[in-house]
Amino acid sequence: MFKGVGRKTAQRMALETILLSPERVNQFAASLTHTRTHIRFCKACFYLTWGDYCHICKDTRRQRSVICVVSEPKDVLNIDQTGHFDGLFHVLGGVISPLDGIYPEMLRFKELRDRIVATGVRDVILALNPTVEGDTTVLYLKEYLSGVGVSLYQLAQGIPIGADLGYLDEVTIDKAFEGKRLL
Amino acid sequence: MFKGVGRKTAQRMALETILLSPERVNQFAASLTHTRTHIRFCKACFYLTWGDYCHICKDTRRQRSVICVVSEPKDVLNIDQTGHFDGLFHVLGGVISPLDGIYPEMLRFKELRDRIVATGVRDVILALNPTVEGDTTVLYLKEYLSGVGVSLYQLAQGIPIGADLGYLDEVTIDKAFEGKRLL
Repeated sequence: MFKGVGRKTAQRMALETILLSPERVNQFAASLTHTRTHIRFCKACFYLTWGDYCHICKDTRRQRSVICVVSEPKDVLNIDQTGHFDGLFHVLGGVISPLDGIYPEMLRFKELRDRIVATGVRDVILALNPTVEGDTTVLYLKEYLSGVGVSLYQLAQGIPIGADLGYLDEVTIDKAFEGKRLL
Repeated sequence: MFKGVGRKTAQRMALETILLSPERVNQFAASLTHTRTHIRFCKACFYLTWGDYCHICKDTRRQRSVICVVSEPKDVLNIDQTGHFDGLFHVLGGVISPLDGIYPEMLRFKELRDRIVATGVRDVILALNPTVEGDTTVLYLKEYLSGVGVSLYQLAQGIPIGADLGYLDEVTIDKAFEGKRLL
């Protein structure tokens, strides 16, 4: 049921469950049901929330003119934890991947465009993984949003902090040279 | 003697040596002596060579107005293998690291400055690892080369190709946002 939990681990957990107090198990089971029943997608950005809008969209201290586009809800968590991005998010629900049966019309592109047009967003940062699927989605969005008058940005590709040139692939070194910046 | 070869591995190799033909062992021993005796640093860039100047410095098809500064000879290999950088190199021989007893005067900074002044280099790309020591060296070089009229560049820091945002550290995500580029 859960990734990373195979047959053996599941069996161990099942046996451990028997040793827990009935109260704890009931509480845990109730949490699971409650989460599944009440968690839904934010009506604006499609991040997770208990209500209609998520805590990020409701936060009035955040910049409303910048949207960071991500693939999955977990990416919102990863980026928000850095504490340096203070705009809003938009969760696409995946990236274009015809081999996996994911086509543009299945992702939240229209919702993104409608939102940009409706709220007057100026900057859109595409924070998608630098994979073939991510890059395809970037190209598609560049075309799709070409008429709405918004500045599109892509995250910097290059050498991760603390890395060693000797352990990086050639494409990354190449991108790092391409994106070199004046000191 | 060699990193990665501990007592057990050394013992195994020693025993394997006995099983090789005397000719092969003599040839190998001769190669070792020959390499150690004849390999030296290039007089211009301090990369490895058999003669006075390395094959990169002698290559007339390379741009002579761009120098890529690296820490170790192995970095020249890594970058040259990508096949996209067609300038020259300069091997510092390490990075500033007072904790390891490596101070600026022990690295080839003066040789770099003299070379820039003598040959009229326009662009210097600092391709040092994005570690504390690498960044310290970048700052030092920025100051040290401030008077020689050269454009200093740093490699792009950001998300390596094929990576997943979920597995990157916060500083890297932060740098990727900082260095975002307009599409």
